Amino acid sequence: MKFATISTGTGTFAVVRVDDRNVLPISVLARGVDTTEALIETGGAALDAIASGLQAKRWRSEDLLAIDGLRWHAPVRRPGKILCVALNNSALDPFNISVPSFPAYFEKPSSALTGHREPIELLPSYGLTHPEPELAVVIGRKGRFIQPDEALDYVFGYTIINDVTSVTMRKEDHFHVRFPTPDGGEYKMVEEHVSYPARYKGCDTFAPLGPWLTTRDEIPNPNALQVRCWLGDDLIMDDNTANMRSYVPRVLQWMSHHQTLHPGDVIAMGTALSPKRDRPISYGDMNKLDGDVRIEIEGLGTLVNPVRRREAEDPRLHFQR
Amino acid sequence: MKFATISTGTGTFAVVRVDDRNVLPISVLARGVDTTEALIETGGAALDAIASGLQAKRWRSEDLLAIDGLRWHAPVRRPGKILCVALNNSALDPFNISVPSFPAYFEKPSSALTGHREPIELLPSYGLTHPEPELAVVIGRKGRFIQPDEALDYVFGYTIINDVTSVTMRKEDHFHVRFPTPDGGEYKMVEEHVSYPARYKGCDTFAPLGPWLTTRDEIPNPNALQVRCWLGDDLIMDDNTANMRSYVPRVLQWMSHHQTLHPGDVIAMGTALSPKRDRPISYGDMNKLDGDVRIEIEGLGTLVNPVRRREAEDPRLHFQR
Repeated sequence: MKFATISTGTGTFAVVRVDDRNVLPISVLARGVDTTEALIETGGAALDAIASGLQAKRWRSEDLLAIDGLRWHAPVRRPGKILCVALNNSALDPFNISVPSFPAYFEKPSSALTGHREPIELLPSYGLTHPEPELAVVIGRKGRFIQPDEALDYVFGYTIINDVTSVTMRKEDHFHVRFPTPDGGEYKMVEEHVSYPARYKGCDTFAPLGPWLTTRDEIPNPNALQVRCWLGDDLIMDDNTANMRSYVPRVLQWMSHHQTLHPGDVIAMGTALSPKRDRPISYGDMNKLDGDVRIEIEGLGTLVNPVRRREAEDPRLHFQR
Repeated sequence: MKFATISTGTGTFAVVRVDDRNVLPISVLARGVDTTEALIETGGAALDAIASGLQAKRWRSEDLLAIDGLRWHAPVRRPGKILCVALNNSALDPFNISVPSFPAYFEKPSSALTGHREPIELLPSYGLTHPEPELAVVIGRKGRFIQPDEALDYVFGYTIINDVTSVTMRKEDHFHVRFPTPDGGEYKMVEEHVSYPARYKGCDTFAPLGPWLTTRDEIPNPNALQVRCWLGDDLIMDDNTANMRSYVPRVLQWMSHHQTLHPGDVIAMGTALSPKRDRPISYGDMNKLDGDVRIEIEGLGTLVNPVRRREAEDPRLHFQR
C-alpha cells in the first residue's frame, strides 16, 4: 500500500492510494486513525483493516479525493529524528584518502521537511546548492541493538528523500584546529579537521520527502532499486541502491547500536550518483534551475519540487572579525 | 519560575518549584496544562495563572510533591530539534588554524535526552567520552529571520545541557576525500575534510537536560553566567558564558536565517572550559569515573548524572574491509 499526508479545505490527514487517480482518507477504513504517525504506532490491526477495506471496496465514491488536486506534506510530518548516511556510495571509493569502514551519519531536523510539489527555498547566502536523491527508510517499531537478519522487521516502509545540500555552507562550516588531546597522563596538541552539517544539510525545505510512504511488503529488496534524478530536463543521476557501501540491514544495526530507533524515524541511505564513474558527482546548481527537481525511485514513485529563490539580508556580514 | 518534568506512580507531568523542598503539578494552577510543551505552546495566560497561583498559595498541601523523591525527565521531552553551537568558546581562539567567524552548529536527536539523576550509559565501543557543560536556551515562539534586538523575546527559558561527546567516535567519523568540485564549466578534484556528529554527539543518554527549565525573567543576561563542572570530586571546568564567541541573540539570528525555530526547540550554546587558558580542555574520561557528573550554572541549578557502563558486542567488527 501507498500512504501520503495531504491537506484539503477540511484539514490535514493521511490517505491511501486507491488507483492512478484517487486516494482515500485512511480513517474511512480504520476508524480513529487519521495520521501516518498513528498508523505506524497502531501497526498491524489498522494496516489489515485498510488492506481488506481496499480489496472489498468498502468506501463510497464521494469519499475519494483526486490525486491531481492534492496539497502534499512529508508523509511523516514530525519524526523524532532523521538520520542520514554520509558518502555511502561505492562510486566514491576511488577518491577516498582516509574514510571509516562503517556508515558515518548526520541528522536533518524535522523542520527541514517539505512535501511533494512544494518549493525548495534558496537564499543568496546558501551558495552552490544541489539535490541528493536517496532511498528513505521509515521505522515501524522501537529498536535498539537490532541484528541484521531481523532488521527489515523494524521497517514500516520506504519513501524518497531529497537530501538537499549546500556545498558553499559545507565548506564554510569546517574547522581546522589544534586540540589539546590526552596522550597518556599528558596532553599534546593535535591538528584536527571537524565540520558541522546542521546548516548545510538542515535549512528549511532541505528535506523534501514523499510523495508516498510505501509499505515494506511492496519492496522485498531495498538494496536493488534504480534511482534517477533530473534537474529540469537534464538527467543528472542514474544509479542503483545496489551500489550503496552499506545496505539497509547493516545501517540499522549500526545506528541502533548507538541510538534507539523509534516509530516514524526516517533514515536516508545516502545519495545516488552520476553513471559516469570517473566523475560520479554531477550535481548541478539548483540556483540556476528553471524547472523542477525530479527524483524517481523504482517502486516508490516520483518526488517533484520546484525551486524558489528568495531574497534576505546576508547574515555573514554581522560576523566579520 | 522553575519548571520540571517528572514521573510518579500516577504518570509523567510538569511541575513548578514552590520552595527548596517541594514542587507542585502545574495543572493545579493552570487547568488542562500538564506538560511543559503545552505550557510553552499556551504561553502567557497559563504562565500568569501559575505565577499568581504560586503567590496566593492557591493549592492544598496534599498537592505538593517532595523534590527528594522525584524521578526526573528532560524538562522538554521531545523537542522538534536540539541545535548545538560548536567550538563557541574564546579560550580556543589561540589554537585555531582556520575556522568560521559565525556559529557553526550540529544537532542532537531528542532520543539522546535524559533527565537529572538518570545514568549516562557508556558502551566499550564509545571510547574516550567526556561531559560538556553548556547553557541551553528553550525557544518560546516560532521565529524565522529573528533580529538580535528582539531575539530574547523568542526565548521561553533556560536550562542546563550536558553535551556528552565521544572523542573516539569523533575521530572515527572523519572523512578525508577528493571531491570532484565544479570550477567554471569543468570539474577539478579537491581534497576535503568532512566529519559527521550524529553518533559521537547523539547516542542514547548523550543529552542530559535539566533539572529545571527556568523562565527567562529570572535570567536577565544569559551571557554572564558562571558554569562549573565536576567529575566526581574534581572540578574540571570553571568558566563563564561571557567567554562565548557568539552570544544568544546572535546565535538566534544566525540559526533562524536558515531554519524556523519552533516552541520547545533547544539550543545548546557550546561548552564551558577549564580555567587554565594554556590548556583549556581538561575533559577527563567518564569511563574512569566513579561518582557523578555534576554541572552547575548560576541561577539555573545543578544537573547531576551518574555513569553506567554497559557491555555490548562491538559492531565495528562487522565493518572491517
